Amino acid sequence: MLSKNEVKYIQSLCHKRQRNADEVFVAEGPKLVQELLLAKVDIVQIYGMKHWIEMQQTPSINVTEITETELEKISQLQTPNQVVLIARQQLPANEPEIKNQCILALDGIQDPGNLGTILRIADWFGIKQVVCSLDCVDFYNSKVVQSTMGSISRVACWYKNLHKWLAGIEVPVYGALLNGKNVYNVEKIKEGVLVIGNEAKGIRSDILPFITYPVTIPKNGGAESLNAAIATGIILSHLVRENSQ
Amino acid sequence: MLSKNEVKYIQSLCHKRQRNADEVFVAEGPKLVQELLLAKVDIVQIYGMKHWIEMQQTPSINVTEITETELEKISQLQTPNQVVLIARQQLPANEPEIKNQCILALDGIQDPGNLGTILRIADWFGIKQVVCSLDCVDFYNSKVVQSTMGSISRVACWYKNLHKWLAGIEVPVYGALLNGKNVYNVEKIKEGVLVIGNEAKGIRSDILPFITYPVTIPKNGGAESLNAAIATGIILSHLVRENSQ
Repeated sequence: MLSKNEVKYIQSLCHKRQRNADEVFVAEGPKLVQELLLAKVDIVQIYGMKHWIEMQQTPSINVTEITETELEKISQLQTPNQVVLIARQQLPANEPEIKNQCILALDGIQDPGNLGTILRIADWFGIKQVVCSLDCVDFYNSKVVQSTMGSISRVACWYKNLHKWLAGIEVPVYGALLNGKNVYNVEKIKEGVLVIGNEAKGIRSDILPFITYPVTIPKNGGAESLNAAIATGIILSHLVRENSQ
Repeated sequence: MLSKNEVKYIQSLCHKRQRNADEVFVAEGPKLVQELLLAKVDIVQIYGMKHWIEMQQTPSINVTEITETELEKISQLQTPNQVVLIARQQLPANEPEIKNQCILALDGIQDPGNLGTILRIADWFGIKQVVCSLDCVDFYNSKVVQSTMGSISRVACWYKNLHKWLAGIEVPVYGALLNGKNVYNVEKIKEGVLVIGNEAKGIRSDILPFITYPVTIPKNGGAESLNAAIATGIILSHLVRENSQ
């Protein structure tokens, strides 16, 4: 049985300020929670319905059994799904590793579903480091967490003044632009940064001077643009594919 | 001033049955409505706020001025945006054209955002025909319409028993699978069908026998899968790119 204060506290974790103050995040549903348990995230508390708890082969620590009504109160999902996990945020190292790495840099990605999907794509292509501009949506926003489908435990994310950060590194910087080089003709990369811009406005003008290799996905039809996550997926599949089997 | 009945009617268009009975669909917001007007969709009625109407360089037919309160009542968006368009559905020809065409076939795509994004990707790559299984989300669902960003006017869509349809055509059939040929090594195509499966379950077992060319996006990291729209974008960028400049 959850106390009123517990319910209030869990609900308050939909706010970035509260999440960051306590350095925690929330993940929901059996599949995602299972992935995060396997990835050995640092569990603060698990709130599971009886059925979910009974299905666990290895009992987890800090599990509280809750009723469906309690789940509905604490869940941030439209369709609450058996279990809510509160886990510690994984704070990344001070600075991303630049050498021999492909890094994604996101300039003002606003939509949580887009950020989550981009992290999942990065994870698919073996990219382990993402640098976000300070105005990107929060990495631990619950919609981001849910749409990473578990990749959140495998990708490290920094929030930085992108201008300053790009000014301080010395690797090739690729950028998804509408008037760049045909991405099909760009050589595969082993080291570098790929900048993806805001969903509506693209890459900001103060970031453009850092882009040494503008790349474009050629189009053959009428659509004005591609979604930021789709563009990320397509460009990575051409730029970093030599790393794949 | 809208009558109660008008408001009720527009609201009822969130239901597929009502949309299909009247062969209409709803699109919202200045950008999308502008695209559809340029594409010369068959306008039934436009409900616009004063400000939107005054901004139009070419006055449209059948425009009703509405207040913000009225817009909030008839809009299906979380953030209503100046204008709501009701237009006639564009009914496609009896059968898709198979010869010298690349066609997308969708097997049980459920999420309206995914279908909309897939249509936008198809449009980007110059694919003008999409065949959906009967259980795919409705093409004219308002979330589909909104997320196509206007591509809905340039891509024709059929709902068919996919099994029967595939049994009756004689072109190469590609399918996005986890154990297919590396998509980076597949030759570009000028004619054929690409089958994309359901978000969670992939391509159904009764469709698999029709797939003559299973293709896979090689992975190099931990993510278990890619979103269906992302996979569509990546595969098309490798399969049909020779059509692009």
